[in-house]
Amino acid sequence: MFKINENYLKLPGSYLFSTIAKKVSAYTEANPGSDIIRLGIGDVTQPLAPAVISAMHKAVDEMSDAATFHGYAPDLGYAFLRDAIAAHDYKARGCEISSDEIFVSDGAKSDSANIQEIFGQENRIAVCDPVYPVYVDSNVMSGRTGEYHPETETWSNVIYMPCTMENHFVPEFPKETPDLIYLCLPNNPTGTTITKPKLQEWVDYANKIGAVIIYDAAYEAYISEPDVAHSIYECEGARTCAIELKSFSKNAGFTGVRLGYTVVPKDLACGEVSLHDLWARRHGTKFNGAPYIVQKAGEAVYSKEGKQQLKEQVAYYMKNASAIKAGLQDAGYTVFGGVNAPYIWLKTPQGMTSWAFFDYLLEQANVVGTPGSGFGPSGEGYFRLTAFGSYENTLRALERIKKL
Amino acid sequence: MFKINENYLKLPGSYLFSTIAKKVSAYTEANPGSDIIRLGIGDVTQPLAPAVISAMHKAVDEMSDAATFHGYAPDLGYAFLRDAIAAHDYKARGCEISSDEIFVSDGAKSDSANIQEIFGQENRIAVCDPVYPVYVDSNVMSGRTGEYHPETETWSNVIYMPCTMENHFVPEFPKETPDLIYLCLPNNPTGTTITKPKLQEWVDYANKIGAVIIYDAAYEAYISEPDVAHSIYECEGARTCAIELKSFSKNAGFTGVRLGYTVVPKDLACGEVSLHDLWARRHGTKFNGAPYIVQKAGEAVYSKEGKQQLKEQVAYYMKNASAIKAGLQDAGYTVFGGVNAPYIWLKTPQGMTSWAFFDYLLEQANVVGTPGSGFGPSGEGYFRLTAFGSYENTLRALERIKKL
Repeated sequence: MFKINENYLKLPGSYLFSTIAKKVSAYTEANPGSDIIRLGIGDVTQPLAPAVISAMHKAVDEMSDAATFHGYAPDLGYAFLRDAIAAHDYKARGCEISSDEIFVSDGAKSDSANIQEIFGQENRIAVCDPVYPVYVDSNVMSGRTGEYHPETETWSNVIYMPCTMENHFVPEFPKETPDLIYLCLPNNPTGTTITKPKLQEWVDYANKIGAVIIYDAAYEAYISEPDVAHSIYECEGARTCAIELKSFSKNAGFTGVRLGYTVVPKDLACGEVSLHDLWARRHGTKFNGAPYIVQKAGEAVYSKEGKQQLKEQVAYYMKNASAIKAGLQDAGYTVFGGVNAPYIWLKTPQGMTSWAFFDYLLEQANVVGTPGSGFGPSGEGYFRLTAFGSYENTLRALERIKKL
Repeated sequence: MFKINENYLKLPGSYLFSTIAKKVSAYTEANPGSDIIRLGIGDVTQPLAPAVISAMHKAVDEMSDAATFHGYAPDLGYAFLRDAIAAHDYKARGCEISSDEIFVSDGAKSDSANIQEIFGQENRIAVCDPVYPVYVDSNVMSGRTGEYHPETETWSNVIYMPCTMENHFVPEFPKETPDLIYLCLPNNPTGTTITKPKLQEWVDYANKIGAVIIYDAAYEAYISEPDVAHSIYECEGARTCAIELKSFSKNAGFTGVRLGYTVVPKDLACGEVSLHDLWARRHGTKFNGAPYIVQKAGEAVYSKEGKQQLKEQVAYYMKNASAIKAGLQDAGYTVFGGVNAPYIWLKTPQGMTSWAFFDYLLEQANVVGTPGSGFGPSGEGYFRLTAFGSYENTLRALERIKKL
């Protein structure tokens, strides 16, 4: 008789954003006609940039003619896209990353969930707390996290690095020694980040203890301050300790287009074994490439027109972020983030729990946000709003919140 | 110090089709200007159908306007596509499969590699031999296959079901009891299949021993004989023992578009635990949906025009299959398949090994095929040609082979 993967049964509840979707849909069914404003899940609302649209139409046309049709993509992704990434995201910033260290994928969510597969079962992971749920959940599914303690909402074999008001949301080196360190900077959910010298300390620490940093740079495009690194490879020594994950979801609005990439430098090895080779093997065996049309869309992101149009799109969302931050401060809230990231992280008022504030905001203002506790125990008492709504809806949501 | 997943090191060599690509590219570098005809990897060559192209252009336009823009897709896929699949692929064939038992994905390769994750480590897998390499390799990576014996090219903990000329390529119930049974029908690589009554025997067997059949129906569209099932759910009792994987790659030419789906019936359970819930949890945590544009392309496959156009496309490839089969028989080869599948499986001449015949065909005829031994030890002495070339190239390849 077949057996299931028992690790799945250890997962408490459902995936955070599925739970939110279900709660909102239950509310709208009970209250038909209610005018919900969604600032919860980090989904974008602005249309794709004209340069991207035009590249996609062209690619669709190519698929209609046998002479220009494209079947299976190369394992690592098309050279036209990997070369554009290497030039614009790395060489232009002085980072030494070559095209063949870049693996094109269907998005950073899949990559951040799958990357743990190339590591042994016995590795201990360290995560910021609060954190994007996929890092921990994917390790739970593969049996690396020990037992769940419901009273503390923690896993026995996970090293938590609390990020709270008290330490200005900057993780500290843990007391126990981790093997894999997940860092998402600028941070989801807190919207905060760390300076480049601070990131250099993490790279030095990882090299010293022999750990790998899994660096999620999905929100890099939102960095506005000069002393913040856009890639971990701006730090010296990162090629021997860091894997970087990048997404096109937030810088180019590709949440429904699906494109991302992962960088595994060839210098990253465990003894004689190159992690680059292992990830290449996983990519070749368990994945079949991102669609040609989508890779052409990704190439257009790096065109002159694409870059200009997307700079404006990022500015549009960051105008929302500023409006949310200022509006909430006016209304007496304690607010963080929103300067180098499209997320606003607020302290819930009057000691409300995160989920109590979620319900309160949904029912009283018809505004959907994300409960901080959904990202980990240290997120309790916090709440995330995103800047990805339309400007009009963002202002309307703020008016409603101010009236509460 | 971090550790790697040691199971990866057990994998012999690289992924089959990566090896072939490297060999061909080495040959063309050494022999510039050589006119290679590729009948190796199962990649299609005909352009996308007009109905699909038109749906994709429309979807791209929707993405260019905030009012019709689509961000993150629903976890299981868009209802428009799941409903179309349920109606056309199941209800129309008398199979009782509902929309919410269908999980839309980026292709059957990913699904066939990922499906093992929801099962326990202790499950024993049974595979046909020869077999699509992904089934075994994905289980090797997760540590389920025991040790590799290079002398027999087998894994100690895998149950092999030889499919050779002797048993007409029809797998027999194994002597040992498996927990997971991979069946690909019509078969890749042999191009053969089994009758519906025979498939019913497999369903009865799986229900009796408490095994799950992972049924890869990627080549279903090529079935031409009436007594062959198009879905395993045509068999009684399949809802309690079978997971079905489907691809849009071969019936609609989506190898570079990336779309597939997996059916996990709600009746399939291990005690109280529903496999449907486990797969839903995996989908929600480790995947973020197929692109909206691609799902709209998939919907168009089921439109009246799309169905007609794709029927013609399948007929085009099957005309190639018939030509290859007849041509090789004329040339004195012993040939199988090509009636219910786009693959021709031939016995290598004069006792040549599969790889020796690969090199011979590449060097003497500039034709690329796939060595049978790459699919498993019982594939040694066989060779696969695909019908996915253009008709013109297929005829040219045959002329060259006949001249050898």
